[in-house]
Amino acid sequence: MALTAVLRLPARALLRPWALLRGVALGRTEAAAGIRNGARRFGSQHVLVEPAAAAGVAVMKLRNPPVNSLSLELLTELVISLEKLENDKVFRGVILTSDCPSVFSSGLDLRELCGRNPARYAEFWKAVQEMWLRFYLSNLVLVAAINGACPAGGCLLSLTCDYRVLADNPKYLMGLNETLLGIVAPFWFKDSIMNTIGHRATEQALQLGSLLPPAEALQVGMVDQVVPEDQLLSTALSVMAKWLAVPDHARQLTKSMIRQATADRLLKQRDADIQNFVSFISKDAIQKSLQTYLEKLKQKKG
Amino acid sequence: MALTAVLRLPARALLRPWALLRGVALGRTEAAAGIRNGARRFGSQHVLVEPAAAAGVAVMKLRNPPVNSLSLELLTELVISLEKLENDKVFRGVILTSDCPSVFSSGLDLRELCGRNPARYAEFWKAVQEMWLRFYLSNLVLVAAINGACPAGGCLLSLTCDYRVLADNPKYLMGLNETLLGIVAPFWFKDSIMNTIGHRATEQALQLGSLLPPAEALQVGMVDQVVPEDQLLSTALSVMAKWLAVPDHARQLTKSMIRQATADRLLKQRDADIQNFVSFISKDAIQKSLQTYLEKLKQKKG
Amino acid sequence: MALTAVLRLPARALLRPWALLRGVALGRTEAAAGIRNGARRFGSQHVLVEPAAAAGVAVMKLRNPPVNSLSLELLTELVISLEKLENDKVFRGVILTSDCPSVFSSGLDLRELCGRNPARYAEFWKAVQEMWLRFYLSNLVLVAAINGACPAGGCLLSLTCDYRVLADNPKYLMGLNETLLGIVAPFWFKDSIMNTIGHRATEQALQLGSLLPPAEALQVGMVDQVVPEDQLLSTALSVMAKWLAVPDHARQLTKSMIRQATADRLLKQRDADIQNFVSFISKDAIQKSLQTYLEKLKQKKG
Repeated sequence: MALTAVLRLPARALLRPWALLRGVALGRTEAAAGIRNGARRFGSQHVLVEPAAAAGVAVMKLRNPPVNSLSLELLTELVISLEKLENDKVFRGVILTSDCPSVFSSGLDLRELCGRNPARYAEFWKAVQEMWLRFYLSNLVLVAAINGACPAGGCLLSLTCDYRVLADNPKYLMGLNETLLGIVAPFWFKDSIMNTIGHRATEQALQLGSLLPPAEALQVGMVDQVVPEDQLLSTALSVMAKWLAVPDHARQLTKSMIRQATADRLLKQRDADIQNFVSFISKDAIQKSLQTYLEKLKQKKG
Repeated sequence: MALTAVLRLPARALLRPWALLRGVALGRTEAAAGIRNGARRFGSQHVLVEPAAAAGVAVMKLRNPPVNSLSLELLTELVISLEKLENDKVFRGVILTSDCPSVFSSGLDLRELCGRNPARYAEFWKAVQEMWLRFYLSNLVLVAAINGACPAGGCLLSLTCDYRVLADNPKYLMGLNETLLGIVAPFWFKDSIMNTIGHRATEQALQLGSLLPPAEALQVGMVDQVVPEDQLLSTALSVMAKWLAVPDHARQLTKSMIRQATADRLLKQRDADIQNFVSFISKDAIQKSLQTYLEKLKQKKG
Repeated sequence: MALTAVLRLPARALLRPWALLRGVALGRTEAAAGIRNGARRFGSQHVLVEPAAAAGVAVMKLRNPPVNSLSLELLTELVISLEKLENDKVFRGVILTSDCPSVFSSGLDLRELCGRNPARYAEFWKAVQEMWLRFYLSNLVLVAAINGACPAGGCLLSLTCDYRVLADNPKYLMGLNETLLGIVAPFWFKDSIMNTIGHRATEQALQLGSLLPPAEALQVGMVDQVVPEDQLLSTALSVMAKWLAVPDHARQLTKSMIRQATADRLLKQRDADIQNFVSFISKDAIQKSLQTYLEKLKQKKG
């Protein structure tokens, strides 16, 4: 519900022009604070948006330390931030990257998947869907500058972009590794990767839960380019310039023609997909397995 | 209407056996002249058909100088020429190439897209559809011997073929570059290229309007082979021999099994597609943009 | 009818635990003998199942000399053997290979396609469908260790597997070469190969009836790995270990998510597909062509 409510208020959120926000995190502005009652930090806590050096380009940085877990809050902020940029005529492209060292995004926040009630699971899943739909169909040019590990939901987020550049670091593994956690990626995760690397490669990558190092990610087509880490942003900007050389209207209609059918598959069964998720994640066996995994993660840190 | 009328008369057009037509352009024969009242030049003006050195193979050359623009007339002649060959038991394969130096085909004739009335736009678009449907589903083996630049509609025409050989000349760029003109390739252009280079490569090529030099066209799979220009025809003939070694009936049924679903997508909404085109092309903004582009082209020549 | 009857009796066939069957062919056990009245050799004649060195892995060997033709009997035994392994909790993966030198499987038994009555053709085709459906959707991990020529139906069988390793021998040609026999591969053969090598490569491979040597089969993606013949089984076991490292439940659901839609296409029109086959194969021209081919094969042997 929160998500829906928020999404109905783009106009108010846009009262303050983006051009004024150079380097300022979203939620710290009054406009952003107005989005959601009593959530002053909202909208800025986890997503940092800055104009890039190039005209018309924004850099959107995920900032949910330590590993950019996709919590309900982060997902919601991502969607709002994107929508603001879409509604701002100044911006035509977004470079999506991480503000956390060594991790682009670790994927869905496991704390959202454990020990919650069905209503909360449903709300969370709806936010995951919303993130995917908005980013996958965005009118803006989205270039992912992947500067860290990119598993599961982090990989999904990058797959929504129009182009992916990955920093050449053997620790930056990338892939939809859900099966390894005993979880099954939903069909629209599958569609996203299949549209990117093809049917056969998807059969392997998705069943094996493959996390690929840069060279393999490039070879299979999961990313479009691998560059030294210090050239990541400059490469993303060069790529962006190429995409922005195309008239927006023609490019947007073309993008929609190619992607809408895939998005429609989820749109047509969005509620059923939420129910599937809630009933799957509520299973004792799944909860047990996830909690064991979470415990291990906590011990590792401690 | 003209197109439909013409297409109902294959029998008459075939009264004169093809075996007699060595080196003679279509429209110069009486049979061809009979196809359309008062259009004596019709059927030969822009399409030259000759038997190749190999048995059962015809060479079909586009001859609409200077750049083989796909006018209503050329499109209609292409379809008639193909249909004649299909109805002639002598021929099993066609090598499609250009009679104009340095250009395979520059694509749809922009003069057909500017300053005409809706009825004419509709007639023209129906002819583009017809060309695509007939060539894409042809029972004959079609090999494109691409001896020049191959953008937009020229690329589409080559994509209907069973095999594409491209002459190795860095000026022979190839691709569906519609977005660069502010135009959107319709869904069946998209389907054609997606069936050839895959989903991910299509996302990029179609949005960016990429025109690829031979090496890149080969790498992405837009063509099957790149050879020195003086080996283009001989290579096309070798390829043809390989395809003609397969029993026609089994090959034709297999081709139809693979391609019919893609063609059906257009067949099921052919009128709607025409309406979409007419309303899109009639927009002031599009007309303005195309006319500006045409002016530039004229100044370039002058 | 025989097939259906057999398939209803998995429980009885499983009374004797598989763990006891090390190295013993299926049909030689009493349980197997009980499957079908008066068919004591049934279930063991042509399929040899042995536990592999690795825990949870079975090796299934086709043994229908000289070339593992897929007869009604072999197809039925394959399905029963697979179903037994699926119902046996000991086994999680199967390595599929040939017991005949130099041939994985020569494909559908041509003697099943010649001079039979329509009812028999229908029964045979239903068994081919059943084999494909069961293997394509199997819950087990299937790895093909292709140790010989692999044309037509043999290729189809290998395409149902999750991974294909091919022995590096230039004589081990692989592909769906139906067109060369004047036959058309049905749509689900086409879907199988298209899901493996993509749309464009399928257009060529299927129309040309290409039989590819190992290097080309690897390049186009028809197999995943080519290794020296003496490393075939060890490689298959390594691959299997990787796949078995994934939790079964998550892997199985993911496999089903990816493959079910393709299987459903056949399931929705299974009877029509049988009717198509029967009417196609009963044609005089097809029968003549197949019988001529069979005669040639016999003379070759003699």
